[in-house]
Amino acid sequence: MSKLSEEILIIDGLEYCNWNRNLFEDAHKGGLNAIHVTLVYWENTEESFKKIEEWESIIKKYNDLITHANSSKDILTAKKQNKIAIIYGFQNSAPIANDIFLVEKFFNKGLRFMQLTYNNQTPLGGGCFENKDSGLSRFGKSVIEEMNRLGMIVDLSHAGKQTALDAIEFSKKPVAISHANPSFFHQSIRNIDQDILLNLKNNNGFIGLSLYPYHLKNSSNCKIEDFCAMIKQLLNIIGNDSVGIGSDLCLNWPDEVVMWMRNGKWTKKIDYGESKNKNAHWPQQPSWYQKPSDINNLFEAMCKNGINEKIAIKIMGLNWLNFMKNHF
Amino acid sequence: MSKLSEEILIIDGLEYCNWNRNLFEDAHKGGLNAIHVTLVYWENTEESFKKIEEWESIIKKYNDLITHANSSKDILTAKKQNKIAIIYGFQNSAPIANDIFLVEKFFNKGLRFMQLTYNNQTPLGGGCFENKDSGLSRFGKSVIEEMNRLGMIVDLSHAGKQTALDAIEFSKKPVAISHANPSFFHQSIRNIDQDILLNLKNNNGFIGLSLYPYHLKNSSNCKIEDFCAMIKQLLNIIGNDSVGIGSDLCLNWPDEVVMWMRNGKWTKKIDYGESKNKNAHWPQQPSWYQKPSDINNLFEAMCKNGINEKIAIKIMGLNWLNFMKNHF
Repeated sequence: MSKLSEEILIIDGLEYCNWNRNLFEDAHKGGLNAIHVTLVYWENTEESFKKIEEWESIIKKYNDLITHANSSKDILTAKKQNKIAIIYGFQNSAPIANDIFLVEKFFNKGLRFMQLTYNNQTPLGGGCFENKDSGLSRFGKSVIEEMNRLGMIVDLSHAGKQTALDAIEFSKKPVAISHANPSFFHQSIRNIDQDILLNLKNNNGFIGLSLYPYHLKNSSNCKIEDFCAMIKQLLNIIGNDSVGIGSDLCLNWPDEVVMWMRNGKWTKKIDYGESKNKNAHWPQQPSWYQKPSDINNLFEAMCKNGINEKIAIKIMGLNWLNFMKNHF
Repeated sequence: MSKLSEEILIIDGLEYCNWNRNLFEDAHKGGLNAIHVTLVYWENTEESFKKIEEWESIIKKYNDLITHANSSKDILTAKKQNKIAIIYGFQNSAPIANDIFLVEKFFNKGLRFMQLTYNNQTPLGGGCFENKDSGLSRFGKSVIEEMNRLGMIVDLSHAGKQTALDAIEFSKKPVAISHANPSFFHQSIRNIDQDILLNLKNNNGFIGLSLYPYHLKNSSNCKIEDFCAMIKQLLNIIGNDSVGIGSDLCLNWPDEVVMWMRNGKWTKKIDYGESKNKNAHWPQQPSWYQKPSDINNLFEAMCKNGINEKIAIKIMGLNWLNFMKNHF
């Protein structure tokens, strides 16, 4: 059975956990070298700056296990120090409202990933839950130019299809879909159609594969072999350098938080998001991906299921690192 | 020559002036009974609440001439008190960001008109300057339901065409375009196409006619006779009850303010808005509409140019009042 050597990087391209010592210790024990963590979804500018302050406290509190990363170099330094590099990301552009100058202000506080939209339309573009997607707006173009200039990754998870296509084409630097799966694996509002994958490929874009049950074939009962077969098929489409993991692990939160993610402050009714049966609970993770360290189960399974070990190693983190190097 | 009797209401459905005693005195002398004033364009929530506080001070300072109106009844009371009723409006939804609960908070502070968009896309819908218009978004629908519930007028000036069509259809209460002209009078990004006018008519919607030069045939040299001919033609399309004046008078501001209106904080480049020749100055008002009291020139001209006096009286303010009565 293959095992990752200590020299190999492991990067999770998206997690949203209610972090505590147990979770960080699990990630550390699992050899994770970097995690892109989500700070906000619907929060406004002020709330988002506060969330960054909260994260500064978290990083101080657990500084035996984690450190904040502003650059890809910081990830390598963290690895030498035997710490997990924490990369800040927003899953929405709500924090910048309609203010182009806020992009740099958040960048200066460490923000390195930002989604243009989260399910719903924003001033930048359309969300994947909207009936009609405007594509990239005037402000959306301004913001991408600014993100390109600064070195902040444009994240198209939760974007509408036209907005994703427009952004892939418009961005001068490659864009990422940090956490989603191909539609051919499982048809879902959040998963990614073939034409987007091909455009990503043509523009050196990146996809981080999600372990969130609504994005998986057979949901919580998804078999790891099926997940690996999906990866093999995806590599044939997008190549070996543009795929990583963005687990979308959401651990240790009460159910109110999944409902907050769906409803934010935008409706007085109840929106059940990706749940088709009005489920207001967190979905159950597959048995083989219950905690941050379970990313290692994927490495073993990829090797067992016909993915070349060198390529599996890249998927575990090197691809993410090389992609990030293009930006910060 | 016809002259308005003292018993007749005069309402201007939109002005954005840097108000001072001179301007209020001119409006008062001109017999204006109510003015819908614009408070903000690009301002965020906090800035918008501050702007309301500023207006509370303005209303106190000039309380010999003006008073704040929360309802159409307040307009009639103001008239009895020989004061101008001031109705608050936002020309954008930036103040509510993505928060449905802010609609009521602003309503409680006196907000009675809100545009869904100002030129650019917002989380609610598309703006008239966008290449592609999403139409009304998920949040846009939530907000219109809330505005309908509270009695706040949905203003579609500066909206994209699809968003305007969607909102006219979706809103349970009639909507307004507070300041624009028909495209048949002058083709302009801000003016209104025939199909929107017909949909407005079918849904008891309202249009306030603009005197902003970029919305006028021959711009600053527009002849009052041509403006009146446009009104006649419009009445044939939309009927006699759904037309008023929304002068869009923007007086006493430095040029920086017109550039702020165009650029807000959304771009680091310069956007010249409706000016096709990169003009960074305020456009020159037509000679016959230089100040708030010049609304009276229109009454005289309408009567001279074949509009029945009773209908002209309605256009001067009664139509607006009756429309507002449906809401507040």
